[in-house]
Amino acid sequence: MIIYGRNVIEEALKIGIHISKVFISDVNSSEMKRLRDEIEKRNIRIEILDDRKIDEIAHSRDHQGIAAKIKDFLYSDTIKTLDGIDHDPFIVILDQVQDPQNFGAIIRTAYGAGVDLIIIPKDGSVHVTPAVLKSSAGYAFRMPICIEVNIARTIEILKERNIWVYAAMMEGKPYFSMDFKGPIAFVFGNEGKGIRRLVAEKCDDKVSIPMAREMDSLNVSVSAAVILFKAMEMRNDSKVTR
Amino acid sequence: MIIYGRNVIEEALKIGIHISKVFISDVNSSEMKRLRDEIEKRNIRIEILDDRKIDEIAHSRDHQGIAAKIKDFLYSDTIKTLDGIDHDPFIVILDQVQDPQNFGAIIRTAYGAGVDLIIIPKDGSVHVTPAVLKSSAGYAFRMPICIEVNIARTIEILKERNIWVYAAMMEGKPYFSMDFKGPIAFVFGNEGKGIRRLVAEKCDDKVSIPMAREMDSLNVSVSAAVILFKAMEMRNDSKVTR
Repeated sequence: MIIYGRNVIEEALKIGIHISKVFISDVNSSEMKRLRDEIEKRNIRIEILDDRKIDEIAHSRDHQGIAAKIKDFLYSDTIKTLDGIDHDPFIVILDQVQDPQNFGAIIRTAYGAGVDLIIIPKDGSVHVTPAVLKSSAGYAFRMPICIEVNIARTIEILKERNIWVYAAMMEGKPYFSMDFKGPIAFVFGNEGKGIRRLVAEKCDDKVSIPMAREMDSLNVSVSAAVILFKAMEMRNDSKVTR
Repeated sequence: MIIYGRNVIEEALKIGIHISKVFISDVNSSEMKRLRDEIEKRNIRIEILDDRKIDEIAHSRDHQGIAAKIKDFLYSDTIKTLDGIDHDPFIVILDQVQDPQNFGAIIRTAYGAGVDLIIIPKDGSVHVTPAVLKSSAGYAFRMPICIEVNIARTIEILKERNIWVYAAMMEGKPYFSMDFKGPIAFVFGNEGKGIRRLVAEKCDDKVSIPMAREMDSLNVSVSAAVILFKAMEMRNDSKVTR
């Protein structure tokens, strides 16, 4: 898999993701020199190419002059991840989110809000692509992400573990009037169609973001940010670090 | 100015923005047929073109098969807008936000949270471009947006009107422990550099979003969403509609 963008590659280096090769175009900026030093320290092969060539390798023009070859993204296992959580789980399920920018933004936000894992469906959803990694600013490497075939069944499994599952949808109760302490999961839906009916029906409750003005809806990554940070605020003030 | 994207053009039609011409490629989807009916009802000239041609006209491939020619975006005047507000003002200042996606997302979020106006600097900031309009889902047409040459001076003017100005930055107090009632403004900074020192110094107080895990920072559009919706929650429960 080819990853691209400075933050992503910097994160990959920090975490120790195995990088077999790096492609660099601009090597003159001070930021790029620092990054190059880091790469050379680890004896990773570097190839200097022009920007056009990196466009081709990255299949994107959004690479900021750097791309790298890594093994495929490593997804986590839902059950094993759940078993490894030693506190009240805080989970996000994305029911067919399709835009890589939204998925990446939600990963980054969820990481900051203290979410333990993100579950996505196998079909009808963007997976962890290079564009998602870029838009997550590399935080996808730090966040357990699981793929499940049947999200409705996954919700049942969470409920068997006493995890309270909220569907984020228009007809829900105001998010600030609810109690998000304890083991919880939030389901956020597709950009256009929202949460699938069969998935929504499995949830314990519905939650919405009331708005000051009449409008269609918020962007899903914005809704997720508002609700996840509210949950974090409610869950554990003492855990908060600044 | 050329605008593009279905939501944006639908919004422009709804609000009555003067459109001199529309360019359409795909006319077969039911959504596009509905939109085309709306356009024909208003006697707006339609030209059928292939997608490649619309790429050229829109200077983007992100047009979803439709573009339209309108007059330039109409910015508002800060003083006149302030004078016209009949309640405690709720203002957003973006100090050199540069990414069109972020600016557009903040406009849409601010509209939903009940913000009265958005102020941006003349220099070093993305203005309301077609990409911003697209990413705002057209809500930029409904939100007063003002350009000011000197943001530090603008903050002084707000303070003279008893508006309390908060700088959103890492070293601030936790956003959920503060009181956002009354006339307020929030300043959000550039994606990389944050708020300029001279601008931050003019602010009355600093506010931050504590995070559950060590990380660089949230995306500016995510920070804005979390803080603006918290302010909305605090400001006026009775005004909330669902």
